[in-house]
Amino acid sequence: MPTIVVDVMPKSELLDPQGKAVSGAFARLGVEGFSDVRIGKRFELTVDGEVTDAVLAEVKKLADDVLSNAVIEDVVGIEVVQ
Amino acid sequence: MPTIVVDVMPKSELLDPQGKAVSGAFARLGVEGFSDVRIGKRFELTVDGEVTDAVLAEVKKLADDVLSNAVIEDVVGIEVVQ
Repeated sequence: MPTIVVDVMPKSELLDPQGKAVSGAFARLGVEGFSDVRIGKRFELTVDGEVTDAVLAEVKKLADDVLSNAVIEDVVGIEVVQ
Repeated sequence: MPTIVVDVMPKSELLDPQGKAVSGAFARLGVEGFSDVRIGKRFELTVDGEVTDAVLAEVKKLADDVLSNAVIEDVVGIEVVQ
């Protein structure tokens, strides 16, 4: 069955404490070469049946209304896989 | 500056309580047509300088050792963007 992937990231102008924690871990581990780490969410929605334009439109609406919080997050990608 | 995206998902054989919560919300909202929802993490690593094979190899190692927990999660994608 096809899967639709929705990617949600914290808005770039907001601090991302989880990402900062990973950056700090990199520094402690001696890992260099990465100036920033940000952590968002990846949703995989398994679709019953075919991915039509109507299904994609519904996923876009769900991504904006249910899967993300528009105050602090951006939907950065909606992609059909398989 | 180039960004490397690392996608981490809960292993398919494990229950994903966050995903189940979203499935439940869909049901309550009357949203139909999705048989499963799973939620993972999307890491965006901003790279200082160029993405060489050595940088990619390091990211692969970091993805396995630091960014994911191999007991419960799989690294499902490593991709260079921009």
